[in-house]
Amino acid sequence: MTKMLLEILEQPDALDRLLHEESRNITSIAEKIKAHSPAFFELAARGSSDNAATYGKYLFEYANGIPCSLAAPSIHTVYKRRPQLKRGVVIGISQSGEGTDINTVLRNAKKAGAYTIGITNTPDSDITNAAHDVILLRAGLEKGLAATKTYTCQLLALMLISGMLSGDRKFMLHAAHIPEKMRKTLAVRDQIESITERYRYMDRCAIIGRGFNYSTVKEAALKLMETSYVVAQPFSTADFLHGPIAMTGAGFPTFVCIPEGRMAAPLTQLSKDLNDKNLETIIISNRPSALKIASKAINMPVDTDEIFSPIFYIVPFQFFANALSHAKGIDPDKPRFLKKITQTF
Amino acid sequence: MTKMLLEILEQPDALDRLLHEESRNITSIAEKIKAHSPAFFELAARGSSDNAATYGKYLFEYANGIPCSLAAPSIHTVYKRRPQLKRGVVIGISQSGEGTDINTVLRNAKKAGAYTIGITNTPDSDITNAAHDVILLRAGLEKGLAATKTYTCQLLALMLISGMLSGDRKFMLHAAHIPEKMRKTLAVRDQIESITERYRYMDRCAIIGRGFNYSTVKEAALKLMETSYVVAQPFSTADFLHGPIAMTGAGFPTFVCIPEGRMAAPLTQLSKDLNDKNLETIIISNRPSALKIASKAINMPVDTDEIFSPIFYIVPFQFFANALSHAKGIDPDKPRFLKKITQTF
Repeated sequence: MTKMLLEILEQPDALDRLLHEESRNITSIAEKIKAHSPAFFELAARGSSDNAATYGKYLFEYANGIPCSLAAPSIHTVYKRRPQLKRGVVIGISQSGEGTDINTVLRNAKKAGAYTIGITNTPDSDITNAAHDVILLRAGLEKGLAATKTYTCQLLALMLISGMLSGDRKFMLHAAHIPEKMRKTLAVRDQIESITERYRYMDRCAIIGRGFNYSTVKEAALKLMETSYVVAQPFSTADFLHGPIAMTGAGFPTFVCIPEGRMAAPLTQLSKDLNDKNLETIIISNRPSALKIASKAINMPVDTDEIFSPIFYIVPFQFFANALSHAKGIDPDKPRFLKKITQTF
Repeated sequence: MTKMLLEILEQPDALDRLLHEESRNITSIAEKIKAHSPAFFELAARGSSDNAATYGKYLFEYANGIPCSLAAPSIHTVYKRRPQLKRGVVIGISQSGEGTDINTVLRNAKKAGAYTIGITNTPDSDITNAAHDVILLRAGLEKGLAATKTYTCQLLALMLISGMLSGDRKFMLHAAHIPEKMRKTLAVRDQIESITERYRYMDRCAIIGRGFNYSTVKEAALKLMETSYVVAQPFSTADFLHGPIAMTGAGFPTFVCIPEGRMAAPLTQLSKDLNDKNLETIIISNRPSALKIASKAINMPVDTDEIFSPIFYIVPFQFFANALSHAKGIDPDKPRFLKKITQTF
């Protein structure tokens, strides 16, 4: 069994630990955020952590009404500028806690008077010095090269911040059930593995979602690029229709994430349109009306509120990336050209 | 001659008109921005306009120190939420001025008490009602499906806002020379057309830049996707090294933008590393040390400050998208599945 697969399967336990061992710390961090009364949030991250940050942007704007931006770290590191971050809360997300660029953003933000938070899986890493306060993911050491359990733990950490900020009890009750639902979600593995062979020679694809699941399709594309060498492009529906749809055509493999919620009807309609154009559609959903039009349907084993859906909808892609790398003869724990910690200038 | 090519060639004149006919209006808008004393900027856009917005983010953070986010329009349109935008300046960018989603963001922002600006090429379009004030691009009607002259005019409009806000006279002097430099840049056409045949059967590629030119590589990828049906993925160097590099390999076509400036040395080093891995590197630069290592070198006919470089560095990609579509037998003015104005839910 690959490290990647082992860590995909560890996710229910990892989420459970985070929920039980960090909730108190996150409650106190939420109080400090309120005390700062921020005009905006800024999230600084790279790679999978940046995909988690994309989820955070939607969540904080939707549930907390706080405008939220994704940092351009090069402004701080390469161009040596210091945007006026005083009125903001700046959250750095880094599995290793050692990303120099992310830690530089946090240090500059702290100096500027912002309240700063680090989210990391690594106790005593440099991010614990860079930020005012730190949330530990408690996912256990991630040995696989591709981030899996740390990504979903990052999503849950962001949910807990949001829920404790808004004081929404229904939201927090939903969050409490995530580990249990994640356990059910793992049952999707068999469905995924049964369709993988078909994509042995897929070398490019599009992955489509919108709103909260824009994070999911970005992370799904990254998994496929890094473990299976597929040129996988993530798109929000809106961006896809503004040009990239032209590059598709008959047989072009297109994955569409359709959880229940406000995006479900228009995404189902889009999938019908893609089918009419003879694209290959792989639909991940639990809506029968969406699944029945798919070239290949992945029936999600859990029903969930759209806001929480990204933590579950990434799982079929994690299994798929792992299985596809096998089908292609690649070791997903040792993709070419990559190391676990990437330092960028 | 395609409409697209005609409009690429019109860019010096279009930029000149914008500079001369809108500067006064932009001066007064800059005063209103100062009067609002914003805690942050938010830019709302789709497609090519969103790539211009990406440039705006770097520019406003770098030159004006104002934290800047790119809006997620679905928060307003699909999820019906109203983030607290009062302390912000919200800029909507839309060639047609008729994007319902962008205009909804502007209307909500105005109601919330933000100062709102529309940037459009279309007088009397709905964006002129949605925003407090409007900047007209004055590019002339854009008949080609692929945005070219409106994109570079959007970049110049953002530069003028930034320069008038900072009152940086050297910056404004640079801006005044842009139409003339754009005229020189058009000379790159012959170099581009001489290498195009080689890429007739390219169906996927990576396009790499960083910092200010992250906007360029995003826009370049969109041009290639919509006119030439290439699965073109744009990456900042930092993101590329965090995983996607694994999907490349011998012969994989990789375009790298290397203008003079702080990113030049590390991007040249990256290109060397890619060459060592036997990728096909197409390097757009005016640095001999970068050009000499390329599989195919595009020598930029102008020398320019990195901050201004995106307005010129997109031009070789515009010519390339137009020429490659011809080589592939596609009419770039009529790509499949697309219309000029895209309405998104």
